[in-house]
Amino acid sequence: MLDTQYSQYIQHRIDQKTKPLGALGLLEKVAHQLALIQSQGKKAAVEHIELNKPSIIIFAGDHGIADEGVSIAPSAVTQQMVLNFLSGGAAINCFCAVNNIDITVVDTGILLPVESDSDMLISQRLGTRTNNFANEAAMSLETVERGIELGTELVSRTISNGTNIIMFGEMGIGNTSSASAILSALANRAAAECVGLGTGINNEQLARKVAVVEQGVARCKGLDANEVKDIKGVLAQVGGYEIVQMVGGFLGTYQNRTPVLVDGFIVSVAAYVATLIEPNCRDYMIFAHRSEESGHKILLELLDAEPLLDLGLRLGEGTGAALAMPIIRAAAEFYNNMASFESAGVTV
Amino acid sequence: MLDTQYSQYIQHRIDQKTKPLGALGLLEKVAHQLALIQSQGKKAAVEHIELNKPSIIIFAGDHGIADEGVSIAPSAVTQQMVLNFLSGGAAINCFCAVNNIDITVVDTGILLPVESDSDMLISQRLGTRTNNFANEAAMSLETVERGIELGTELVSRTISNGTNIIMFGEMGIGNTSSASAILSALANRAAAECVGLGTGINNEQLARKVAVVEQGVARCKGLDANEVKDIKGVLAQVGGYEIVQMVGGFLGTYQNRTPVLVDGFIVSVAAYVATLIEPNCRDYMIFAHRSEESGHKILLELLDAEPLLDLGLRLGEGTGAALAMPIIRAAAEFYNNMASFESAGVTV
Repeated sequence: MLDTQYSQYIQHRIDQKTKPLGALGLLEKVAHQLALIQSQGKKAAVEHIELNKPSIIIFAGDHGIADEGVSIAPSAVTQQMVLNFLSGGAAINCFCAVNNIDITVVDTGILLPVESDSDMLISQRLGTRTNNFANEAAMSLETVERGIELGTELVSRTISNGTNIIMFGEMGIGNTSSASAILSALANRAAAECVGLGTGINNEQLARKVAVVEQGVARCKGLDANEVKDIKGVLAQVGGYEIVQMVGGFLGTYQNRTPVLVDGFIVSVAAYVATLIEPNCRDYMIFAHRSEESGHKILLELLDAEPLLDLGLRLGEGTGAALAMPIIRAAAEFYNNMASFESAGVTV
Repeated sequence: MLDTQYSQYIQHRIDQKTKPLGALGLLEKVAHQLALIQSQGKKAAVEHIELNKPSIIIFAGDHGIADEGVSIAPSAVTQQMVLNFLSGGAAINCFCAVNNIDITVVDTGILLPVESDSDMLISQRLGTRTNNFANEAAMSLETVERGIELGTELVSRTISNGTNIIMFGEMGIGNTSSASAILSALANRAAAECVGLGTGINNEQLARKVAVVEQGVARCKGLDANEVKDIKGVLAQVGGYEIVQMVGGFLGTYQNRTPVLVDGFIVSVAAYVATLIEPNCRDYMIFAHRSEESGHKILLELLDAEPLLDLGLRLGEGTGAALAMPIIRAAAEFYNNMASFESAGVTV
């Protein structure tokens, strides 16, 4: 559990800055959370928030459910977008370039593997793609276990290499269906509430998407969201390789007491699953972007989260997290270097 | 008027990027606007949005209305905060430091002038502070004219020095009262709708603030928001030195065909006044932050604006604009460097 012994001191430090109480809104909450996280195990509260080598890990995976026509694009596009990430041409590359964020791309199991010597690419393939969860379990329980381990280990390695703030992104044709099914099964909400338009399907495809999600969720009946084994069972039934590895990633940020920026819907589902396995994970999460996916609203309520941005993005890739990074830097900067009433001679 | 001949081409260029249509939300609108602005007078649409030397100009001024107890702080704090800006200790300094934004501070007439050799400071004093608009005109019509000129000239000089994207900020104890009165008078809305809590007054102060705003607005009766002379008459009755100079500043960004980031409530009032004088000003404005001030909602409707950020800031200083600058850079970067479906070999 997050040690809150310095919480009051940190708040006092924020309140003494030359501004009316609370006038920096969400930035004050971010600064407080970062200072608290970085004070863990220290003998005193931190006076200086450090942000070192911000890194995004993009987990890519393919989904058998894509065969059901629930996406605007075929599974082959996952590979094409991975190649686009590696050559620097995607939106996430642009946003990381302007915000000085390192990128790692993980092949967690995409239909068509890529041949590349790029340092950016890590292969942690759990299979070719998941099974079609409309008809059968997406993967085995052993695969879920292995995926979680791999995600945790990767995050630990990233942190060992000097990163102290992490972001997750994802790419995977069909993965909003998987995310919706996980949410529906674990939060016990109707599929129709959890399913959205993804990157832009039509109403007919939406009805189909709801139907296949319902089929997958039906097989999760009896699995209990309070039992770790059953949570993993839901991931086996309707999960995706990239989602499973992200769940492990969130557990890794907790184990390493490292803040993590949570992108939109898919990443938030993985975050939610991680908090069901280990509730203390939540303390290290900063929510970056409010997605238009209908399931995201449910998740934000469940996680008691207020995202920093609402820019109408619906792309994934971690774009919301990358765009929120400058706000994290601004929060750290005001905490570190803004004058106090006393130091500035301001009399209010 | 903004030349829209390349609008379709620019949209096509955005639509060919490797993402679903519209998936970058507000960033697509920003990129489109910037590309259109920078295409003015050119023989072809721009393929590359340039952002040079982003600069914020903070206009500081004092208000006689502060004597009515409508603020949490006395007028002396305006000077103290100007000194804080000059020594780099304020929130705006922190946000400009992390986002690489130049700062200029303008004394438009603060109660206690500062002694400083700082290059950051420009003196364009229109007086010691405005008269108390609860009882009399805040300033003369000549002062309004002079203030508008000074604001326009300063923006033109800033642009001559190599800046091609501008932000405005403000500081002035009492200036939400002035801004509310201007809005109430020109938009013909009840004072109670236009008045908010500023940086944090209590309910009693709020009632007082509404009352004094009503007194000032009553003197504006008969002034017509469609007549430039009368618009200036409203500024003379209830305006502030910093607001008047910002109105001139917005006219200057239009004259120089230069995009400008609009901060929260006070700056938006100046933006609104500028659009009443010259409607084409609107095309160059990008709205940065949604303020919690009740009058801001009215302004955003009047200006048909959707701000980029909603971070719960209520500080002024241009903090919302400075925090939005990384989103502007991200929009330019994706427009400039993101791959197209063709160049990336993506098949959707």
